[in-house]
Parts: sequence; C-alpha cells; structure tokens
Amino acid sequence: MASYRLAMRAVLLHELGGPERLVLEEVPTPAPAPGEVLVRIRAAALNHRDLFVTRGLYPKIALPALLGSDGAGEVAALGDGVTSLHPGSDVVIYPMLDWGDDPALRSPASSILGMPRAGTFAQYVCVPARNVYPKPAHLSFEEAAAIPLGGLTAYRALFTRGKLARGETVLVPGAGGGVQTFVLLFAKQAGARVIATSSSEEKLERARALGADLALNYAENSSWEKEVRAAGPVDLVVDSSGGETLSKALSVVRPGGRVVLYGGTHPEANVKLFALFWNELSVIGSTMGSPQDFAAMLALFDKGLKPAVDRVFSMTQIVAAMRRMDDASQFGKIVLSW
Amino acid sequence: MASYRLAMRAVLLHELGGPERLVLEEVPTPAPAPGEVLVRIRAAALNHRDLFVTRGLYPKIALPALLGSDGAGEVAALGDGVTSLHPGSDVVIYPMLDWGDDPALRSPASSILGMPRAGTFAQYVCVPARNVYPKPAHLSFEEAAAIPLGGLTAYRALFTRGKLARGETVLVPGAGGGVQTFVLLFAKQAGARVIATSSSEEKLERARALGADLALNYAENSSWEKEVRAAGPVDLVVDSSGGETLSKALSVVRPGGRVVLYGGTHPEANVKLFALFWNELSVIGSTMGSPQDFAAMLALFDKGLKPAVDRVFSMTQIVAAMRRMDDASQFGKIVLSW
Repeated sequence: MASYRLAMRAVLLHELGGPERLVLEEVPTPAPAPGEVLVRIRAAALNHRDLFVTRGLYPKIALPALLGSDGAGEVAALGDGVTSLHPGSDVVIYPMLDWGDDPALRSPASSILGMPRAGTFAQYVCVPARNVYPKPAHLSFEEAAAIPLGGLTAYRALFTRGKLARGETVLVPGAGGGVQTFVLLFAKQAGARVIATSSSEEKLERARALGADLALNYAENSSWEKEVRAAGPVDLVVDSSGGETLSKALSVVRPGGRVVLYGGTHPEANVKLFALFWNELSVIGSTMGSPQDFAAMLALFDKGLKPAVDRVFSMTQIVAAMRRMDDASQFGKIVLSW
Repeated sequence: MASYRLAMRAVLLHELGGPERLVLEEVPTPAPAPGEVLVRIRAAALNHRDLFVTRGLYPKIALPALLGSDGAGEVAALGDGVTSLHPGSDVVIYPMLDWGDDPALRSPASSILGMPRAGTFAQYVCVPARNVYPKPAHLSFEEAAAIPLGGLTAYRALFTRGKLARGETVLVPGAGGGVQTFVLLFAKQAGARVIATSSSEEKLERARALGADLALNYAENSSWEKEVRAAGPVDLVVDSSGGETLSKALSVVRPGGRVVLYGGTHPEANVKLFALFWNELSVIGSTMGSPQDFAAMLALFDKGLKPAVDRVFSMTQIVAAMRRMDDASQFGKIVLSW
C-alpha cells in the first residue's frame, strides 16, 4: 500500500457568484478506490466550463465543488487492482469519466472531471486508472496540463466530426481561445491551410506565428468575408461563437462544406436554409471527445508539437487567472501550477 | 437515321405569373444532337420546382420555358454516336444534367431538366443518352414517371447524406408531399422504423397504409413531440419544411442524431445551439442526387416496390394538376399523361 498525505490544498467553490467565490483551503487528500490512481498534480489548466460553473451557468451544479478538468502530474498511489501503472510515472489526465463503449457517442452517464467528481485544482486528484496517459516526454508539466480538454475538443471537432482532410482549408474564427489555438495547430499538423480571424492585432500576429496562412481582423475589416472567399474555398469552419459568426460561417463555406460547432457563446443563430440545402452544407455539433480521440490527439504531440500556453499562474492566484480568461485577453491556455 | 415528327405538343411558359400562365401549343419536335436520345414521353410528373418557376421563385429563369423534370417513355430516335440504346426501349429519365465527376458534390455547371433545357411537359424530349435508364418492368409509365426527381431527392437525403442504417427510426414530417412519400417507402424498404406526421387524418391513414409505424397529427395533437419521444429515440429526421419544423426536429432527435434538410418551405430557422453541440447533432443539407444515387434508387424498385401516385391528369389539364400541388392536397406524386 502506497502512502499519501492526509491533507492537501485545493480550490473550493462553496457558493455561486463568479470566480471571486473560489477559495484555497485544506481538505483531506482522497484515497484511490479500487481501479483508481492518485495523481499528484504538478500543473492544471483553466476551461470556460470552470468559469460557467462559478456563475451557475452549467447543468446540474453540485456544491461544494472542486473544479478543474485539466491536469498533469505524477502517479502518487495505486488503488487495488491497478497493475498497469507505476508510482512516479509522469502522466496527463483524460478528463472524461464513463464515456462508455461507443466512440461515436458518449454515454448519458458520462461526466467531466471537476464537478461532481473532485477535479484538478488541488494537490492531488483520484481518477480511474484508464484516465491517465503518459505525459509526452518533451513537454513540461505546464505544457502537458494545457492540453487535455481543449486538445480533446479540438481534435474531435476537426477530425472525428469535421473529417478534415490534408490540403483542405479551415476557417478558425476567434483564434485566441484555448480550443481554437489547438484547432489551428492540429489543422496545420494535418496538412491543412488555416485562415484565422480575431479582433486583436496582437492575437492575429500570434496566430501567424503558430502557422496561420491568413489572419484577418474581423472587427476592423468589414470586408473580411470577401477576403476569406477570395483566398479560396473554405472546406471547414470550426467555431464556438455561434450567433452571427455561425450565420457568416454558412455564407463563406464552399458548397459541400462543413461547419463544426463545439460551443455557443451566442446561444442562438438564425440560419438561412436555402444555402444550407442548395449548397449541401452540414452543421455538425461536437463536444469533448472519446478515449480514442484522446489517444489520437496525444499522438499528435509525438513529433515535437507544443500547445500554446498563454501564461502560467500560481494556483494561489486562481481568481486572477480566471479573470484573465473572462476578459478573453488570453492567447492559448491559462495554466495553474503548484 | 430514325424518323421523328416535325411538330409536337408541349406546355410552354412565356411569362411569369403562376401556373395559369402555362399554355399547351405546337412546337417543333427537337432533334437529338450527337450523344443524345429523343424520348417519346408517355407520362411526366410535377415537382414544386415547376410551380416555383411559374411564379418567378427560382434562380436564373429563362423564358420561354418548357418545364418538367420527370418523365418516362420510349426511345424514339438516337443521335450520332449512341450505340448503347435501341429505339422502342422503355426508359425513365435521370433529370440532372452535367452533374460532373464527383458523386459527393454536383458541378457548378449542373442543371435540372426542364429549364433552361426543354423538359418533359411535351410529347418528346431530347436528353443525353447517359440520362436514360431502363424503366422498371413492373411499373406502368405513369408510375415510372412519378419517380425521378422525388425518388432521387429522397434517396440522397436518406442514404447518401443521412446515412440511414437498418433498425434506425426516421421521422418524416409532412408525410403527404411527393418526396416525403418516397422517404417513407425507402426507409421501410431499408428496414427502418418510420414515424410520419401530417395535419390531415386522411394522409395519416395513407401513410399507415404505406408502412408508417406511427402516424401523428401535429395540428390536432399538441403533444405530438412528446409522443414521438415516447415512441423511442429518433435517429434521423428528413424534412423540407424548415422554420419551426426544423427547430422541433432538433428537439426530438436523439443525441448524435441527424436532421437532413432538402428544402425550405419556411426559409429561415432559429436554431438553439446548446442542444446542437451538447447532443452532437448534425443538420445536413441535401438536394437532388448524383447518377450513382439515381441508379441505386431505381434498384430499390427491383423487388416490386411502387411509388405513391396521387392522381393522373391528362397533360391538357396541367393547370388543374398544378393547382392540386399548390393546395398541398395531394398524397404522393401528381402525374401527367398524354
């Protein structure tokens, strides 16, 4: 039986009201149940989900909550029956629990790590042994922690649902968001051409540095749609904005093209149906990803690829880190480190 | 060189203004160009496209127009170079011209028979030899003429775009329309379960007679959506109504389900995006169909299947026939016969 500390520090949400309600406190270190592992978290990362929960904007919130879906660290202890892992191994955590047997569709019983199951904004987390994967060796813990939920979402949206093929052109609206930076990186890695948009010149510059072939300021350039069309046919749009952005995506994508939506910042869209059926467009929902998606996504990092890390905060600065995400001032993932 | 008449009767549209503008007159019988065949039309059928053109509600209308996309008849003469066909053969016409080489996407140069190319509301029509297929032997000319554009649209929507699998459940809103009766028939033939809706008890009765497992009156039964959900998960919806029907389709389809749209009677829809991405739904546009779709669709009739023919009018009664379609009082295809 491995030993582990009896108390750990963790970020708790006892009441709704925004990220300012998050508090750092001491709680009992969890013990791994049979089939689980205890991971010592070296770095975690933020997702919009964490922010939404603090504001009550998420289904089935249970309080108190220990949030955090992304984490990387070391195996600290093994529950009974776990023989495939060794204490001290560096791992990154697959954040979907109980996905089920069908890679095409998650089980209704599935959930995301970090509410209701205690998440990664803590010194230790218990997860099923099948949820830990070897950390890509060339990545730091901070870099590895940036990957899980955002990389998974981007992978499934681009490949499993969006069926991206080499040589196609992908439009990435709002290129600064955490998931969108993965979309950009993975699409380039897969041999696609990428058109990125943002309202920030600084983010457009960074998108170009990550490999965007064309980067357009939609706020300052009212003819950006024309420029997108002039740049050649767009095969695929990957978006989480919804609203007007979705309507525009349907007007710029080529006949037979696909628009994959993995979120809805603007939760409704008015869709003109003539273009949809006449041009045989597809609007495809996507969210999270299967274990198969996660394994294939991690393999993209085998050849030296690195995620876009916006900034690393200390876990004690979680409120400031959340505010940065809320301002949408980040480019890439916001990481928390102990 | 085969002989053909110098004059024929045909339905012409010289000016826009609705189906009342259609006139029967004598015009020169066309001569088949190299690679074409002249078909003596024994029966034709109506599509909403014909009605839309008479009202000016269609892209790129050229007048005078000789409408009609659906036809069945006999090969009357062969153009130079056509060796694969024999005069006197009974044929049904594939109504897409210049689809192109890609089964997944029609060429921008493609068009539908019956404007600008002279269509089937005539005693004779010239089409490329590759556009004629053997008439299924057990079908009358009237039955065969009912099939082409409607059957093609239904086939592509259900199978090529909708990926219907045996054992799945298909929701068919507005089950009386010509295309929707093919959707119902083909889905049953493919081993699917069919839920049909209509506002007419008479049409619901006919949908049951065609094999619908459940037929619901959406006008008189405000809880029809609940009944659909209670009847088990809906995998696929095939719709051409758009508007509110599309919104409801997205609320009744199961997680991972597909909604295929091949028309937009109500041309805009408000789409709630949370259900779309969270449930990984797909909204898939579809229209017409490839030569491959047409051949596979015709093969569905090999085992004795018959199309739903609403009524057979004489070609001289075309205005009355068009009014019946405009009233939406038909169940199945409205056929015209010489």
